[in-house]
Amino acid sequence: MKIEIKEAKKEDIDSILRLQTKLSDYHRKIDKNYYKAGKERKAIEKKRLVEYFSKREKNRKILVAKVGNKIVGFFIGKIEKAHSYCRAKKIGVIFQAFVEEKFRRKGIGRLFFEKLLKWFKKKKVKFIEVEVDSRNKIGIEAYKKYGFFEFRKRMRLDL
Amino acid sequence: MKIEIKEAKKEDIDSILRLQTKLSDYHRKIDKNYYKAGKERKAIEKKRLVEYFSKREKNRKILVAKVGNKIVGFFIGKIEKAHSYCRAKKIGVIFQAFVEEKFRRKGIGRLFFEKLLKWFKKKKVKFIEVEVDSRNKIGIEAYKKYGFFEFRKRMRLDL
Repeated sequence: MKIEIKEAKKEDIDSILRLQTKLSDYHRKIDKNYYKAGKERKAIEKKRLVEYFSKREKNRKILVAKVGNKIVGFFIGKIEKAHSYCRAKKIGVIFQAFVEEKFRRKGIGRLFFEKLLKWFKKKKVKFIEVEVDSRNKIGIEAYKKYGFFEFRKRMRLDL
Repeated sequence: MKIEIKEAKKEDIDSILRLQTKLSDYHRKIDKNYYKAGKERKAIEKKRLVEYFSKREKNRKILVAKVGNKIVGFFIGKIEKAHSYCRAKKIGVIFQAFVEEKFRRKGIGRLFFEKLLKWFKKKKVKFIEVEVDSRNKIGIEAYKKYGFFEFRKRMRLDL
């Protein structure tokens, strides 16, 4: 199986949207009280993708994994203004990441991450951050393997 | 010892700034590579406090704990636009919270929290969120006691 990691193109929008819907539905399943379903997020995700390609955004990078002609995963990296408590002015952020279930455990995540890492280094960020749901064991384990450590928790009270 | 929880007034700015500096220095000690020291944050904290009082911000609430004439703690609550993945439009956020070391374990945190909770309920938010450093055991334990649960983790890789 030949896996290619490529920069996303405009014609990939529908495939990325399909995977984003799955990512949202995965979260929805974890916590239906809190997360929107994929279909509820489609409009905003589409708007963001269209803007990315039309504005040629320099602070965002969308990568896709291709097996043959099929897109089986995507990763979105961003450069963001750091929080005011952080010593750095800007940070690298892994914004969204998803690999189709049957293509997991083949190293696709790591290929994505290494390609984004090069970009982050070129952008001279000192910190790369990612936020994951605490119940998303797959995500947490993957980021640990890439060298990430947990440093902040978001806690919630439902009224 | 009589503890009073009050809405902050303009003349409390210096006392709040003194406590905010301690809060920042506490974080700096946990992770000096990442967090700014109190003195580095003073200008932005002061600007925020001055704005709060001059604009009479409706979406922010600053509370102080007074023992006699001394301010020994503060809590800042905010109403924020929710993340796009969240089903709610707005959420309540505990933005900053600090009680002087020698006034801890006297229930001041809970008094603060209950007063903020009333405000959040009046503002009709369904979710209250707080972000804490994962190594801040005091904070994590306190929020658990108030009924919060961890639902997201922020992970980081330092380059």
